[in-house]
Amino acid sequence: MDPLLEKATRQHTKEHNSRLLLRTIYEYGAISRADLARLTQLTRATVSDAVGELLERGLLEEVGHGTVGIGRTPILLSVVADARQVAAISVTNERVVGALVNLRGELRASVTLDVPLCDGDAILETIYAVADQLRRAAEYPLLGIGINTPGLIDVERGTVVRAVDFGWVDLPLRTLVQERCQLPVYLANDSHSLALAEYMFGQAQGTPDLIVVKVGNGIGAGIVLGDRLYTGEGNGAGEIGHLVVAEDGPLCKCGNRGCLETVASSAAILRQARELRLTQASALSAEPTLEELAHLAQAGDPLARAVIAEAGRYLGIALASLVSVLNIRRVLITGQVAPLGELLRKAVVTNLARRCLPALARATVVEVVALGPDAPLLGAAAPLLTFELGIERLSRP
Amino acid sequence: MDPLLEKATRQHTKEHNSRLLLRTIYEYGAISRADLARLTQLTRATVSDAVGELLERGLLEEVGHGTVGIGRTPILLSVVADARQVAAISVTNERVVGALVNLRGELRASVTLDVPLCDGDAILETIYAVADQLRRAAEYPLLGIGINTPGLIDVERGTVVRAVDFGWVDLPLRTLVQERCQLPVYLANDSHSLALAEYMFGQAQGTPDLIVVKVGNGIGAGIVLGDRLYTGEGNGAGEIGHLVVAEDGPLCKCGNRGCLETVASSAAILRQARELRLTQASALSAEPTLEELAHLAQAGDPLARAVIAEAGRYLGIALASLVSVLNIRRVLITGQVAPLGELLRKAVVTNLARRCLPALARATVVEVVALGPDAPLLGAAAPLLTFELGIERLSRP
Repeated sequence: MDPLLEKATRQHTKEHNSRLLLRTIYEYGAISRADLARLTQLTRATVSDAVGELLERGLLEEVGHGTVGIGRTPILLSVVADARQVAAISVTNERVVGALVNLRGELRASVTLDVPLCDGDAILETIYAVADQLRRAAEYPLLGIGINTPGLIDVERGTVVRAVDFGWVDLPLRTLVQERCQLPVYLANDSHSLALAEYMFGQAQGTPDLIVVKVGNGIGAGIVLGDRLYTGEGNGAGEIGHLVVAEDGPLCKCGNRGCLETVASSAAILRQARELRLTQASALSAEPTLEELAHLAQAGDPLARAVIAEAGRYLGIALASLVSVLNIRRVLITGQVAPLGELLRKAVVTNLARRCLPALARATVVEVVALGPDAPLLGAAAPLLTFELGIERLSRP
Repeated sequence: MDPLLEKATRQHTKEHNSRLLLRTIYEYGAISRADLARLTQLTRATVSDAVGELLERGLLEEVGHGTVGIGRTPILLSVVADARQVAAISVTNERVVGALVNLRGELRASVTLDVPLCDGDAILETIYAVADQLRRAAEYPLLGIGINTPGLIDVERGTVVRAVDFGWVDLPLRTLVQERCQLPVYLANDSHSLALAEYMFGQAQGTPDLIVVKVGNGIGAGIVLGDRLYTGEGNGAGEIGHLVVAEDGPLCKCGNRGCLETVASSAAILRQARELRLTQASALSAEPTLEELAHLAQAGDPLARAVIAEAGRYLGIALASLVSVLNIRRVLITGQVAPLGELLRKAVVTNLARRCLPALARATVVEVVALGPDAPLLGAAAPLLTFELGIERLSRP
């Protein structure tokens, strides 16, 4: 064999083993070298060498002794949660939020800057400002910067192909931030990020097949298939916000009519509430919030209930597409609509059953859940842990 | 290590290597032992032993010499196409078709038996009769029996969960045929089978991400993701036939209204043509066929064009779901509607663009293609080649 190729292969194998060991230790929390060798099927010598190097890099620590029946008690290894940090940035229509996230998904310093509504240039400047602040605040070595934004992202090229609300077309966001900050940068679509965050750190941790539908001003689905984030051939998987669900519905920014976002986004739901309020008796205020809507609906207000039922109907139509195409049995609906809770869930489930094969609908569990405010940041950080260190949650340890 | 476990592990490794070698030889057509060792990264000794055993089992043959610049010319190895046969059976509403398929997807003896329309018991008896005839006709050892049928299949349990047209509910088809024939039996959904056949033997051979939409009396999609057939958590992936695309449309057998099958199946298209014919001047006959419809439409008949455009509109709506969820860029539409060709394709593409994010639609190539009559049989045979011998097409050799 070509000696250069051989050297490259050896290096590749070494890195592969090191990542496998780190991931396994991460998953188990604390584990002995002997158990590591057994689980990874690597030799004791290979484990010992690789662990030595990971200890030297400060990624691992020895955390006291495990318990065994008789004989010597082995030393356990654990990942040092704060060994590295990620500068995680989440971009929405209203603000840019950033935080330092450690290897266990715990947030350290955080920054929030508001942005002028839908001004693409201003949003870019704000991303720079947040990145700069996080770099200054970092107490441990930074793995890099993870950014999630709405829109169609080309993960490989690191560009935002199109973010309708921001007027971004083919924006080379990764290169821009990378050149400024001299750190690895990973981009992710906001819905994809949320699914990854839920799978790695959230209540659906380790669910191998999972759909997370984010409903805010935009709507999109993140899809985990067989323990991997599924992003599609052009990173457009789960772009259901522009699936047409209302015949001759409102005109959408994308140019089509009746897209899901025009009738079931948080803005669309509140617009619908304001419009109905003009013609129908209701305790609803002139500028209602989703929380108020939820509160009134629970108290029996017919207008509030009708608005939620209508949004649920459209989301049910979109869910029928997801379920008919993917046959994934666990669906979380989250985002700004989370307060609409059980009323929304019921409307979605009723309409899902009417819009796809009943057997598929019956086999699907739909939940409406509030994700923690950290979820978008955890989703932004997750690709750095995966690609820079090889850490990803395994569903079946 | 436990000696039993060690023995089992060695046996498992040996089988794994043997399947890897067979698959590689299959993919390359003819290849030397040295190249095999290089490609699979197995030792020369391991390759030599495993190849010896495969030669003994009659699965391989030595096919003369390759060419090298200087020195000894190596002997090449090739898979014996007729070393094994599969009894492939394809079930449709009208008939049960069977054939013996060899390892290269070539058909040998074939059998066709018509069945009484939509009589589940009679269809089962006809499957038995076809299986018996194929077993008698087999000239080489049978790997087993592959059956594809419409409906929701539980591949693991080997049951037809539900086939609406046949009245089958939880039918243990695999066990029934296995007990009768004493051979391994694999079931597959008909659309899934077609996608697999296209990927393994067809014009989309080796396309790693692919959607094949079958439009006949039933409608379903088969999905290949990353070189693997994707079947979903309950084998219901691609069940778009019951996705509702027509608000308040015709009542479907599944209990819902306006399912894709009620407005775009071959039967629905012909029904629509017959109905329009009563109110509109057209050269269309009283009992039109899809071929006649295609022929008239090409000649400019407005009724025929309108019927095709309408079917294309509904298929475009369903395609928007597939594309928004999966972002797969190559879609084949096939089945009984294939003769509608370019007129159907244009209607589908126009409506796809109106019903999902325009950037996703633009990136998607839609073709309307006639698959050979053998495609369903090849799809039925494919799981046997994969699971019994480890042969599957690789997209990147």
